[in-house]
Formats: sequence, structure tokens, C-alpha cells
Amino acid sequence: MPARLIESLATTEPLADLFSDQSDLQAMLDFEAALAGAEARTGVIPEAAAKVIRNVAKADTFDTATLAADILRAGTPGIPLVKILTDQVRTKNAEAARYVHWGATSQDAADTALVLLLKQAQPILSTDLMRLERALKQLSQDNKDTVMLGRTLMQAAPPVTLGLKAAAWFASIHRSKDDLNAAFARTLIIQFGGASGTLASLGKKGMEVARALADELKLSCPDAPWHTQRDRLANLMCACGVLTGSLGKMACDISLMMQNEVAEAAEPGGDGRGGSSTMPHKRNPIGCSLTLAAAQRVPGLVASFLSGMVQEHERGVGGWQAEWPIVAAVIQATGVAAASMAEVAEGFTVDKARMRSNIEATHGAIFSERASMLLGAKLGRDVAHKILREAAKKSSRQKRRLSEVLAEIPEVTSQLDRATLRGLETPEEYLGSAEVFRKALLSSKSSKTKKKEQ
Amino acid sequence: MPARLIESLATTEPLADLFSDQSDLQAMLDFEAALAGAEARTGVIPEAAAKVIRNVAKADTFDTATLAADILRAGTPGIPLVKILTDQVRTKNAEAARYVHWGATSQDAADTALVLLLKQAQPILSTDLMRLERALKQLSQDNKDTVMLGRTLMQAAPPVTLGLKAAAWFASIHRSKDDLNAAFARTLIIQFGGASGTLASLGKKGMEVARALADELKLSCPDAPWHTQRDRLANLMCACGVLTGSLGKMACDISLMMQNEVAEAAEPGGDGRGGSSTMPHKRNPIGCSLTLAAAQRVPGLVASFLSGMVQEHERGVGGWQAEWPIVAAVIQATGVAAASMAEVAEGFTVDKARMRSNIEATHGAIFSERASMLLGAKLGRDVAHKILREAAKKSSRQKRRLSEVLAEIPEVTSQLDRATLRGLETPEEYLGSAEVFRKALLSSKSSKTKKKEQ
Amino acid sequence: MPARLIESLATTEPLADLFSDQSDLQAMLDFEAALAGAEARTGVIPEAAAKVIRNVAKADTFDTATLAADILRAGTPGIPLVKILTDQVRTKNAEAARYVHWGATSQDAADTALVLLLKQAQPILSTDLMRLERALKQLSQDNKDTVMLGRTLMQAAPPVTLGLKAAAWFASIHRSKDDLNAAFARTLIIQFGGASGTLASLGKKGMEVARALADELKLSCPDAPWHTQRDRLANLMCACGVLTGSLGKMACDISLMMQNEVAEAAEPGGDGRGGSSTMPHKRNPIGCSLTLAAAQRVPGLVASFLSGMVQEHERGVGGWQAEWPIVAAVIQATGVAAASMAEVAEGFTVDKARMRSNIEATHGAIFSERASMLLGAKLGRDVAHKILREAAKKSSRQKRRLSEVLAEIPEVTSQLDRATLRGLETPEEYLGSAEVFRKALLSSKSSKTKKKEQ
Amino acid sequence: MPARLIESLATTEPLADLFSDQSDLQAMLDFEAALAGAEARTGVIPEAAAKVIRNVAKADTFDTATLAADILRAGTPGIPLVKILTDQVRTKNAEAARYVHWGATSQDAADTALVLLLKQAQPILSTDLMRLERALKQLSQDNKDTVMLGRTLMQAAPPVTLGLKAAAWFASIHRSKDDLNAAFARTLIIQFGGASGTLASLGKKGMEVARALADELKLSCPDAPWHTQRDRLANLMCACGVLTGSLGKMACDISLMMQNEVAEAAEPGGDGRGGSSTMPHKRNPIGCSLTLAAAQRVPGLVASFLSGMVQEHERGVGGWQAEWPIVAAVIQATGVAAASMAEVAEGFTVDKARMRSNIEATHGAIFSERASMLLGAKLGRDVAHKILREAAKKSSRQKRRLSEVLAEIPEVTSQLDRATLRGLETPEEYLGSAEVFRKALLSSKSSKTKKKEQ
Repeated sequence: MPARLIESLATTEPLADLFSDQSDLQAMLDFEAALAGAEARTGVIPEAAAKVIRNVAKADTFDTATLAADILRAGTPGIPLVKILTDQVRTKNAEAARYVHWGATSQDAADTALVLLLKQAQPILSTDLMRLERALKQLSQDNKDTVMLGRTLMQAAPPVTLGLKAAAWFASIHRSKDDLNAAFARTLIIQFGGASGTLASLGKKGMEVARALADELKLSCPDAPWHTQRDRLANLMCACGVLTGSLGKMACDISLMMQNEVAEAAEPGGDGRGGSSTMPHKRNPIGCSLTLAAAQRVPGLVASFLSGMVQEHERGVGGWQAEWPIVAAVIQATGVAAASMAEVAEGFTVDKARMRSNIEATHGAIFSERASMLLGAKLGRDVAHKILREAAKKSSRQKRRLSEVLAEIPEVTSQLDRATLRGLETPEEYLGSAEVFRKALLSSKSSKTKKKEQ
Repeated sequence: MPARLIESLATTEPLADLFSDQSDLQAMLDFEAALAGAEARTGVIPEAAAKVIRNVAKADTFDTATLAADILRAGTPGIPLVKILTDQVRTKNAEAARYVHWGATSQDAADTALVLLLKQAQPILSTDLMRLERALKQLSQDNKDTVMLGRTLMQAAPPVTLGLKAAAWFASIHRSKDDLNAAFARTLIIQFGGASGTLASLGKKGMEVARALADELKLSCPDAPWHTQRDRLANLMCACGVLTGSLGKMACDISLMMQNEVAEAAEPGGDGRGGSSTMPHKRNPIGCSLTLAAAQRVPGLVASFLSGMVQEHERGVGGWQAEWPIVAAVIQATGVAAASMAEVAEGFTVDKARMRSNIEATHGAIFSERASMLLGAKLGRDVAHKILREAAKKSSRQKRRLSEVLAEIPEVTSQLDRATLRGLETPEEYLGSAEVFRKALLSSKSSKTKKKEQ
Repeated sequence: MPARLIESLATTEPLADLFSDQSDLQAMLDFEAALAGAEARTGVIPEAAAKVIRNVAKADTFDTATLAADILRAGTPGIPLVKILTDQVRTKNAEAARYVHWGATSQDAADTALVLLLKQAQPILSTDLMRLERALKQLSQDNKDTVMLGRTLMQAAPPVTLGLKAAAWFASIHRSKDDLNAAFARTLIIQFGGASGTLASLGKKGMEVARALADELKLSCPDAPWHTQRDRLANLMCACGVLTGSLGKMACDISLMMQNEVAEAAEPGGDGRGGSSTMPHKRNPIGCSLTLAAAQRVPGLVASFLSGMVQEHERGVGGWQAEWPIVAAVIQATGVAAASMAEVAEGFTVDKARMRSNIEATHGAIFSERASMLLGAKLGRDVAHKILREAAKKSSRQKRRLSEVLAEIPEVTSQLDRATLRGLETPEEYLGSAEVFRKALLSSKSSKTKKKEQ
Repeated sequence: MPARLIESLATTEPLADLFSDQSDLQAMLDFEAALAGAEARTGVIPEAAAKVIRNVAKADTFDTATLAADILRAGTPGIPLVKILTDQVRTKNAEAARYVHWGATSQDAADTALVLLLKQAQPILSTDLMRLERALKQLSQDNKDTVMLGRTLMQAAPPVTLGLKAAAWFASIHRSKDDLNAAFARTLIIQFGGASGTLASLGKKGMEVARALADELKLSCPDAPWHTQRDRLANLMCACGVLTGSLGKMACDISLMMQNEVAEAAEPGGDGRGGSSTMPHKRNPIGCSLTLAAAQRVPGLVASFLSGMVQEHERGVGGWQAEWPIVAAVIQATGVAAASMAEVAEGFTVDKARMRSNIEATHGAIFSERASMLLGAKLGRDVAHKILREAAKKSSRQKRRLSEVLAEIPEVTSQLDRATLRGLETPEEYLGSAEVFRKALLSSKSSKTKKKEQ
């Protein structure tokens, strides 16, 4: 396992492996092997040469440390790689060495290798997102009747259900997941353009070789090379950005619910998870903190990618060279967030009683809107608002239920009967369309899916 | 016209108007008017009250300066607005004043108002983008045979055609435009949730009123309120970010082509455009500079929006309050970039002769790849590479054509005949798949359009 | 008052005024007037001409709306301004019109005007920061003995004092304020370089005129023009970024303390502040939300500025044009944050009893570290940690004090006597160096001040 | 050498080593060893225990891969580290194991370890920056008389000297270097606060131990712990951001000068540097591209750090956890930029003849300002501007010298004599204060240095 302590909170293990030296290098070699294969199939180079190249293109025989140093010196990954590969092929077969990297440019190898890594990243992310969606649906279903405080600007507000809250998390993550998959689909294409993006050195055979190459690599073949048109990758980065934002919102809510003073829910603990070196009692919001850290880091990375889109002519001076670490960091951060939230959602524990007692601790204040509406229908919104403001203050000051205070105000009792006042503070009776919304959110399809059906 | 000198390079006039005080205020009032209308239609409030509210909800009778100060004090646009509106309605009809903003929360007004502004922004952006696409298609068509230097890392590379270059600009902008429109479509929905997002104060009538409200405003009605799920807006910001990046890439290429030493093309001049206060002769890349400025600013704004997505519970503390100026700035910057590039593309002038002479000035060096491939086929890529490197140096040092230098090397002449060597440096003969790619790019449909057809 | 509803949460009124059209325009005219004055003083132009120019350079006679449109067209503020000014001067005196903007370039006017605005911004920011510092010192002093929960990862931790917490807010803001002032000092310099930054058109008189110009404007005169060296402005933007981050941290803490379930403190209310349109009882963290919104927006703006520093040769294509709205937005956002936190700190109310009861509600769990250390000294940190983890769980499960639970464990009672166990949970006895740190923080001088003293 | 292909363009080798697993781990162990030492010195733990701990705290005996996985699980680096270290110490001496990490919290270890790494980073960066400054001073000195085109908006403008240009690069980098060193100085402090930042478990001995710890680590001891006050680190990140921006500006200028059509200068080539896999003749701006890539990436990272400053109470949930990879990436990117520009500056080659011929290729157009000023003194700036605009157009159209065209215009010849017109286009005679500015820039001291002298 490739460890990087400095990034230990910034990636999951599979995604650390994915962007490890062995993996990166193999992806570039896979490009070279597939190129040779495609060119042999289309009669551009001898099949025998292709065979040798394919056999040699194995990452474990290369020294990645030296390669990294050469890459920094060359300013591009492709050139040193091709040099080393050619040298290795030559030791097997001098003739074959002639055909290494035939007609391609170094960016072709680097970009396509990046795409190959992204292709492997997609199922890793998808799996966690599906776990998360499943768990959130279940959580929402299980808690459709679980009332809890609404909170606006972190202040108590009329009640919601945990079911609705979870459904809202679900729906935003679901939309972003669909966008992410669409962005992946668009990005999983070969880059193959040769020196200037015309495949000039392949004469009229450019498109034929390109299609064969895409076929070898099980990637799509785009209309044309995209060496300095980075919108597809940018789109993928953005999709990660939006998804991580939605995951961060969920993590934020949960970490707030886990505060000792709130204590409505907790993410799973377990060995080695969320303890404290000094406070043996603590159960920390570890999954939330990792997700929030990702949501903190990804926006700046997205900005870097977007500003790097301004790439000069047929190969950029800086914009392109900046991309690799950005893409890796964004995918890894998104992966940590997705995996963490999946784990949190699957082991999420809820304290329904505490949710209810947190409502009760507001002494009915959160139902002042309700009282205000009821009174407003009789006395006007404005007048009612004033009465309620005073009553709410009194209730808060005296720590008595709002309904009790209201029952002492003649303007109120002349309009609302005792039963109404008594029922005023039953959370279940003041949920409005919560369940309607919850169901709609859970069954919502992303815009993409909807469109298909029309 | 609302001027803001400090932002005079950051917005076009229609988009400055769009986010002016009158326009913002009217959008919020339109929400309140439509809400009253919808609630009258659904029997929630009296039609008479709705009529008064609708009549009063006209921006020109409000003092926006006072309102702005009140908003800062209140920390939200909706509360002061509703207060002032209620006061104004009361002067007409005390009864009607009871029903202003019935069942809604201040965020409902602010968010839906923002959406109403975005709805007006879309056609402004679309018009310029369509002008741009049309001009780029024409430019590409007109220059399918116009050869020019390819340039990688800003160094001369094998030739491309201006037609291909313009087609690549077109295709990336086209993809992003489609994404932008899809993002708009998804965003043009009402926000209506009441205090906690359950529409509790409307009892069971929440969805009915919501649908009527959406209908009144000619917006769509979402599955549920989205008060702290900002992914749709985030998605729109990102679409603007990617589009502006693609526009910036085009602007970058053109500004490089406009350098005196390159002089291959120019954006249109004309009165008041691009002169210099000190240098009367200059024709500056004004449209490009405005577009590049937008491409510089938007990524940071996108990052701010994305990091602001982490909004607490049912209304955020900071994340939400940060959104308005970000959204306005992103839309305006995108608009400046689109309008500028449309103007640039429509009046773009090309100096084909200079393009050719810039190729010739390289003394054939850019065809060394070609020579390398031809020789490589006989001697191997590696050996050929070395020969060519030496020949290229000699050609450059002696300022003689590469083909002349090659014609003096026995290893070369033994493999390539005179005719081949002579034809080596004809750009038209070394364009590979340029025209194939160009056509594919121009006829390319975005992934979205493609999907529909399947 | 120049209102901009869309930015009503993003600026205070004085800073809105500062970047208003009148103000921006006057700053540019001030440059032109001072330039004429300086050139008259140095004998470059006739004093009579300078007099006319100074008289005409009054913002209120200009049409800023037309000017804004011309600026967008010209791509730079200076050229249209100079044209209009020259026209106006000519109507007074044709001879004087010859000398408008003599030897300067449009960027000189625009950059120096921006600096003049920044000069006015500094005291506005400083005043609020000094209010804030004073209030925080007082708050810290008043609460040096006020114990409250420490909270790590938003979980209860050993106690701190509010005095220490406020001192830490103070010290970080104090450091950043000093940096901000240092950054201002460095930035308050004229920009004056002429077309290419050599003042060529002034012959050998460049420096003399530059010094006179600086003198007229009460700005410093730099070593050389800084047309494409934007590090000083960047430094100022960064200082705002760091300061806003520190203000945001304070706002975050307070908004968390204001949660109903925590209820340890509140920012001031008052008319029009922090109410809710639907919930009459609420007292919202308005100042915190505005500050957090600023802390959300500024980092992206800083990133935009930094990436825009890469400006080409002697005047940038995009980087420079992007600056004005970024600088205005950063200064305004910093100003909102500073003013909001000053108001919050000055009217901050503290509920000491609630702070104590929140400590008690943890049943002593937060003293488990303490117990762990005491036991650790006897049994080893590791063994103690395990005992405490079990005891803490039991205490939490049974809602009994940790000390009670511990008193039942033989390994504990064999090491710690009754008195020790009883005193274990007195917050005042477990504050370590809190007061030492608090005093050091309050008396801390910024690194800059320290250096001077050495 | 720790390779990371995906980041091979994003770090130099020494800075890759610096943030390698061995190095990170050793820094954390150094903290633990020094803590034990400091506590032994102050009588808090037995010297014998400290001795064992110090002996065991050697990175090479730990399995970093397992540790990284444990860290992700724990959500913090300190806890798993302490666990493993304690286990190892116990195998040597059970008694000593009791005293591992005594009184500290996991953040203390992680933060101080990061600071220890930064301390090692400083000389690496400084060395390259000093190389760069030296080379730029020399370059400026050597080229004080080398005239070249000024370029504004990438269009030809009046001449500058390469000496002035290099001096401007030097001065901005020099200012930023000083800021960077000041930021380092401020950051090189221990973090030591225990669970809540009060060092409660050390009783009254907190400050004494803290000072001893700082002493052991050769770091400074701050006024108080800074667990959630991250302004010092933020300041360092910003200093890197501004410096990288200045380096990027230099790289941008050079890459533009290296264009084939401009060809005025080149960065050094050499084996493995800047070749092309397909174009043997190319000499690519490799150092520039790496620097520009850094300047592209750093601003977004700075934004992430700044927005992460908003950390909750006594330990953040997300903001803190995001920091490590950001800090590493920023330092490494700054290092690549500094090293690249040092190499570029040291091997920079200049083509003075080409610089002059590029001036001549403008046919005198860049002297139109000069002519305009000369004529303006007689006819007024405005009239002169118009004459020159026409003359410049004619000169450009007919590819004749501007002075020739002017010599045909009676309004001109009536004011300017033949000699004046002939001398008009001598670059050396139109450099204004270039040399004054150049000298001032080279001898400029940073604001900090100046202040000390006062």
C-alpha cells in the first residue's frame, strides 16, 4: 500500500493506490501498448513490433524514482517515459524500438493515462455513493415520523422530520451523483492528436488508428483531440465540487447534531475511530470532519483547474502542467467524502427522545409562527406578529410554555379556543407538507433521467 | 442606466441593468405578488387582498437606499422588504395587509427573486453565445484551407488550419453552452418552503399553493424546497465557470495571434475601442482582455460558491448570505466574456499571408517531425530523432531550410528521394486529419443532444 | 447613498459610498488634477493650464453612466475619462486642454485612483477594528474567571475560560490588523509610469514629477512604477483574507454558542436586527452570519487576485482588468466583517450560569483526562486510559457523575483518595495555564511591533 | 527518493523528500521525544522514561502504510502515532510507556511536526531564491543598455531596457522573499496546548514545559497555543501565493519572449530539458511552464487554506483536517517555481540584435507617443493624438517608417525640424527614467528592512 502520511486524511486507500506510481506508470504504458496494438491492427506498424512493445510495457520493470526526476527535468511525463520504454524495447528487439510511440505526442500518453485512471476511479466512487444513497433512503424511511427541531441560522425553528432531512440529503447527493457519472462518461475518451493535434504523421490514417486505439483501451473516441480544450475534465472537476459540497452539507448537519448539548444523533464509533488521545470518553465526528475537510479543499482545487483552462494554442504553458495533481486531489477528496458519509449513514444512530426533548426545551417558542398564522387569520399578520413577539419573550423569560402565556392574553383567547391552544405545540400537527416533500425527494429522478423518459 | 464604474469592465449594460436595484426589488415584489395571487387562486387568502398586494408591488414606489440599509441590519433581504410592502399595502387596505407574504419565509422571497433574475439572464447570454457560435462556424468554414503554425508551449509546431482552430473553439463553447442551458433549466424553479421548509403554516395546502405560485411566475415547481441544498445553483455557477474558461482559451489564442511579432489576426477596432491614451497607433485586444479578465475572476467566485454550499440545517449562517453577489458577479462576468467574444468573432480579421510567412520563418523546422517519421520508418524513430535534432540545430543556426540541410546528409538521402525532401515542407501536405476533425467538431452535438436522439 | 440591493449584505454603507461612481470618478479626476499641479510645479506644463484642469476635475459635472459604457468599450477606465475631461477643459480653455493627462498613461490614472480609494478605506476599517479590539479586551478581562466547556471537534472537552477564548480572538485579530496596516502602508503609493513604465515622455524629469505628484496626493513615491508588479496589492488582499478568516473564526464560535441548546451567549438584538419574518421569538446571529459570509467570499476573491498577478510585460491582458471589482469586493467584505464583529463584541451578552450548567451536563466526562493523568502517574497513561474509557461510558450510560463511578473502582480508590476524587470535577481547578495564556495574549504585540523594540 | 509520478511536475526532489512518509513521521516522533525530554528537564516525568522514549522515537522502525490507514480511521495523525509509539516503548520499558505524550494532545504533535517540516523547507526555498536574486541582479546589470520593445496588452509600446525589466522582476521577488522569511519566522513556533489549549494536565507547569519543549526543538514559544487560530500559517501560505505570483509574472514574460516570432531570449536547454518527443528542434520554456503551473495552482490552495481558517472552538471539524496536504502542496509548488526560475535566470540567453530588430519592425510606430508629445507641446495633446493616429495607420499600411510619413505632413514639419524627426526613432533616446528606476529597484530594500533602519 502506498502511504503518504501528509495526505493520510485526504484519500482512501483504493484511491491512494489508484494514483500511486505503479498505477500511473502502468496507465501510461497501457497507452503505449494499446497504441502499438492499434497501429498494428491498422497496418501502420508491424504486428511483431507491437507484440514486443506490449510485452515490455509492464510497470514493475521501471524505476519510478528516476522517472519522476526525469519528468521534472523534461517538464512533461511523456518524453522520459517514451525514452525509457524505447530503451527497454530495444534490448528485446531493435526493430521494434523504431515503433514505440509512433505518431503520438507526449501529451497523448499523459492525458490518456489520466483518463484511464479516471475510468478506474469511477466504480470506486460509485460504489460508495450507492451505499450512501441506500443508507439514506433507509434512514429517511425509518424516520418519516421522527420529529425534530428545524433550525434556521442555527436557531430553533418549527419542526421537521429526520425523514425529510435525510431525504433532502439523499436528493442533492443523488442529483450530483448523476451529474458525476455523466461527467465521467464524457471524459472517458482517448486523447490522440500527435504534435499539433492533427495526427499529421499518420497521414490519412489518423481517425482509423484513433478508433482502434479507443477500442483497445475501451474508451470512447472523441470528434477530435482535446489537447487544449479542457472543458470535459473541468466539467468532471466541477461535478466533484458540487457533490462534495452536498456531502459537506450533510456532514455539517450531523456534526451539529452530535454536539453534546444537542445529542440527537451520532456517527458510528468502533475501534480506532474517533477516540481522543486525551479524552477517553469522546466519540468524535470523524467521518464528518474528513468530509468537511474535503468540502473545504475541493473548491480551491476546482478554481485552480478552471483558471488553468486558458491554455495557449496547441499545448499550454502552465495550465496543462498544473492538471495532474489537481485532478488526483479532487478525485481523492471526493472519494474520502463519499466513503466517510457512506460509513456514517450506514452506522448512524438516532436518539428520537432527545430530538423530542430538544423541541420541548424551546417552551413552544417554535410554534409562535403557527400561533401567529392562526391569529393572523383573525387579526392580520402584522398585529399577530407583535402579540407573538411579546408572548414569546415572556415565555422565554419565565421558562413557561408559549401556549400557557398565550392563554392569558385576552386578544388571543377571544380568537382561539382552549383546544386549539393546547394542540398548538404538538410537533406532529405542524409538519405541513414534510411527508409530501419527503416522498417526492426520495422518488425524484435526476433531470437527466427525467429527460430520457420524455 | 445603472453605472458602477468600479465594475465597468465586469459587466455588460443589460446585465448591469438586470442586477440593478430596481430589477432586484421588482423581482422580490413579483414573488410577493405572485404568492398572493397563488394563495387567492387556491383559496388561502381573499382574492381582494391579493389584488391590492399585486397593485402595490411596484418597485418604483420604494426607496431602495433605505431598503439596502435595513437589509444589512436585518441580515436578510426578505424581512425589511415584507415590512415595507406591508406598510404600503396597509395604506391602501388594512385588511389586505394581513395577507402579505402569507406562509412564506424571507428566504423564499430572496431565492425566488434571484431565480427570476436568472431567468432574464439566460436569453441575454444565449443571444451572444449564438452570435458567437454562428461567427465561429463561418470563420472555420472560411478558413478550412488556411494553414498556420501549430504552437505547443508557444513554440512552433507542425501546421494546423485556422479552420480547425476555430472549430475547436466552437465545439468547446458549444458543449459549455448546452451545459449552461441545462443548468439554467434546472435552476429556474421556485423556492417556497416557509420557516423550516415544510410549508407548515399552509397545512395540507402546501403543494397546491406551490404549484400555483410556480405557475404564476412561469417557473417550475421542484420536488421540495431547496433552502439549504444549493447544488442546482452551484451547478449553474460551474457551467458559467467552464464556459468562461473555454471563452478565455479562445481569447488567449487571439491575443497571442494579435502580437505585433505574430500579426496573424486582429479583433475589430472601431470608435472608442482599443485605442491607447498614449499610443495612437495601437489596436489593442480589448475584447480578449475583458474575456481573460472574466476567466481570471470567475474561478475564484465559483470556489466561493462551492465552499458556501455547506449550509447548516434549514437555513445557513453565512453560506447563504454570501450567494447573491457571487451569483451576480459570475453571470455578469460570463456575459461580458460571451458578448466580447461574439463581437471579436464577428469582426475577426485574418492575415493569411502572414500566417504562411510565419510558417516559412521556421525554415522547415516544424517539419522535422515529418522527416523524423519518414526516416523513422526506415531507420527507427530513435535514430531518426537524433539525426533530425542535429539537422534542425544546423538549419536554425545557419538559417537555411531544413530540407536543404537534410539533403546534405547521406543517411537521409539514401532513404528519401529528392521529391520527397522537396515536398517535405509544404504545409498543406502535412495536415493529417485536420479537416476530418474540423468537420466532426462543427457537426458535433453536445452529449445531451446526442442522448436524446438515441 | 448608493444602494446596491444585490450587494446589500456585502458592504457597509461607508464602503459602499467609497466605491460609488462619484467616489471612483473623483479619485481618477484627483489624479489628473494632481498630475497637472505637479507638472506645473516642476515646470513641465504652464501653471495656468494646471489651474483650469484642477477647476474642471470635479466629479459632479460628469455623466458616469455614459462613462461606464465608454470604459467597457475602451477596455480601460483611463482613456474615456481623459477624453471627457479634455473636452470639458477645452470648453474653458483650449490651451489648457493640451496638457490634460500629460505624460501619463491610462493605467496611471486608474491605479492611482484605486490607491486613493484604498487610502480612504483604511481609517474606516481601522476604526471598526479598534472598536472590536477594545471590546474584546474588555470581554476577556470581565470573564477571566468565567469557566465554560472547551470543545474539540464540537465535542465537550476540559474547561477553558471565556476570558481565554476572547483573548485568543483578540490576539489573532490584532496580529492581522497590524499586517493589514502594514499592507496598506506599502500600497499607498502613486502609480506613474507613462506608456511603458519609463516616463519616457517626460525626458529626464520623470522622477521629479513623480515625487511632486506623490506629494500632491499625499501618497508615497515608489522606487519605480508597478504596472505589472502587483505584489503590494496582492499582499493587501491577502492581509484582508487572513483577517477575515480570523473574524470568521470568532463569528463561528459565537454562532455556535448562540444555539438554543447551548445558549451561552448572544450578539446584540435591537430594532430591525436579527428578527425573523415568520418566527417572532427568534434572535438570530446576524452579525455572525454577515461575517461568516465575508469569510466565505474573500478567499475566492484572493485566489482570483493572486492568479491575476501573472500579467504580461508592461501591461496585462486580463489580469489587470480583473482587479478593480476584486479589490472593491475584498475591502467591502472585510469591512462588513469588521463592523459586524465590533457591534457583536460591544453588545455581547454572556450567560455564565448556562456555561456552568453545560459543563455539569457532561457528568464529569470532560475531567476524564484529568483523572487519566492522575491515575496515569500511578498506573501508566495506557492503563489509566482504558479504565477511564470504561468509567466514562458507564457514567454516560447511567447519567451519573464520573467521580461517582470512579469511586466504585478498586484500582482507582487504591490510588486516589476521596478528596481528590471529589475535587476532580471542579472546573476552576483544572484550568492549567489558561490565565497565563490569557494575559500573554492580551499584552502580545504583533511581530512587527516586537521587532521595532529590539 | 520518494517518487510520486502524479506530482512529478509539482515538487522538486528535496521538497518531495521533505514531505515524505519518513520525514513526516520523524517530525512527529521528534515532537514526542522532545516533549519527553522537556518534561524530564522540568521534573514532570522521570529522566529514565524520557531516555527510553527518545531512543525509540526513530521513524525507520515504524510501518508508515499501516499508520496512514490508522490515521484515516482515527481522523487525526496523533492518536495512532502515540498508540504505536507507546507500544514500542513498552517493549523496551513498561514504566516508560506510561509517560509517552504526557499532557499533550494529538494536535500538538501534528501541528508541531508540520512546523518542524516548514523549518526544513525554509532554507531550501531561500537558497533558490538567493540564486535567483543574484542572477537577476547580474542580468539587469549586464543589460542596462539593452533596449527592447515595451509591450502593453501584448502590443508594441515605447522601448524599455531588459535591465529595467529584470530589475522589476528582481524587486517584486525580493519583496516577496522578505515577506516569506518574515512569515516563516512567525510560524516556526511550537504548538502545545493539551486537550483544550490550557495545558490543564500539567497544572501550573504548563509554560515551563512549553519553553523547554521549544528549546529542545529549536523553535520559538508563542504567547499561547494556536490550535484554532491559524493566521500565522495562513500568512505563510499567502506569502507563498504572492511570491509564486511574482515568479509567474517573470515566467510569463520569458515564455512570451521565447516565442519563435519574438525570439529575444531563451531559458537554458541541456540534456533532458525541454525537448519534444515529436519535434526534435524544439527548445521549450520548461522552467517557465513549471512556474506558471505553480502560479496556476497556488491561488486555489491559498483560498482553501483561508476558508479553512474558520475553525470551531478549541479544535476544528474539517478546517484543521484539511491543512496538511494544502501546506505541503503550497510549499512544494513555491519551491518548484523558485528553483525553476533560478535555473532559468542563471542560464538565460539574450538575443540583443533580435530585440533591436523587433523594435525596428514596428516602423517607428512605438514612437508615435513621443511624436505626439512633441507635437502636443505645440498643438495640444488632442490634436497631436489625431495627427499621429492617421500617420501611424499610414506607416503601418505602407510599411514605412513613421518619421518618413510625418516628414510629409505640413502641420508636423512646421513644428518639428528634420533632426528631431530623424532622432525620433532612436530607442536609446526615449528611455526616460528607465535607468533611474532600474537602479532604484535593484537597491530597494523591502519595507521590513527599511523599517529596521529608521
